[in-house]
Amino acid sequence: MSKGSYERAGVQEVLARAKLPKGSFYHHFPSKEDFGLAVIERYAEQARERLRRHLLDRRFPPLRRVARLFEEMGKDLVAHGCQGGCLMGNMAQEQADVSEAFRSRLERLFEEQRDLLADCFAEAQERHELDADVDARALAAFCLSAWQGALMQMKVSRNAEPLKQFQAIVFGRLLPD
Amino acid sequence: MSKGSYERAGVQEVLARAKLPKGSFYHHFPSKEDFGLAVIERYAEQARERLRRHLLDRRFPPLRRVARLFEEMGKDLVAHGCQGGCLMGNMAQEQADVSEAFRSRLERLFEEQRDLLADCFAEAQERHELDADVDARALAAFCLSAWQGALMQMKVSRNAEPLKQFQAIVFGRLLPD
Repeated sequence: MSKGSYERAGVQEVLARAKLPKGSFYHHFPSKEDFGLAVIERYAEQARERLRRHLLDRRFPPLRRVARLFEEMGKDLVAHGCQGGCLMGNMAQEQADVSEAFRSRLERLFEEQRDLLADCFAEAQERHELDADVDARALAAFCLSAWQGALMQMKVSRNAEPLKQFQAIVFGRLLPD
Repeated sequence: MSKGSYERAGVQEVLARAKLPKGSFYHHFPSKEDFGLAVIERYAEQARERLRRHLLDRRFPPLRRVARLFEEMGKDLVAHGCQGGCLMGNMAQEQADVSEAFRSRLERLFEEQRDLLADCFAEAQERHELDADVDARALAAFCLSAWQGALMQMKVSRNAEPLKQFQAIVFGRLLPD
């Protein structure tokens, strides 16, 4: 699909790119919104897979797993020219205020990500790697939304500086070494 | 203007809402992009005014000024039903990858905001409120992009929770009391 907003992308364009007949598209997706929701679900599934692969990787202590996750995500974004960002974040920014279907779906998917990260922080607390008085869930929500903000700034500066600043502040200052 | 993306908003709609004749619009703004850039400049000017009003307010120590700024911005967003977010962030997310004119303008405007905040952090360092070994500029960039991420999450959850988490983590953990 071309760059730019969901609003801008026409179903015709999607069909042409995918070399699909119109009838078969509308058989599977009664509306463009249904298609958009399915695209988000697929994207979130891959993101969930990556989060689980890192955050449950017991070869490393919990906070090291978190650092490895963000390192890998950062490398992928740099390899893609510091453009694009996160589909969930892009759709949230564009659609959360206008489509309740997108808003509620994205809310659930972001909560899933937050819970995976919060569990890893809780494990760090059990191992005394992280202060017990920190709200693991709030910290996880903060880290993920700060990451989304860094992705937005990365698109604006078209370089990796915002991702490096995220790493430096989150892993150099916010979380213990 | 209606909610939703810049792409979605038609010049016709803008004219109808503003009760303006077409000729007078195109006299001032040769294209929709010129109009969009002017809207961003106006918005950024008001944001700059607010940042300066708080960050240069010498009645308070520097970090207290920063906290007061984010408190005020949060209150405004809650008063607007936790919708809308920041025009600069919304445009950045939607247009940075597709319009070099928007991308470069937004880059400059975000840098201005970062520099105002970085100067305040530097003042905090001079007063020994903040560790001297922190990169004030990177910390400022991080706080502003984390705020943008919190605004995005606020739109998704349609409540103030992400703003509260931002306040709790940034002022309760990242910056000294």
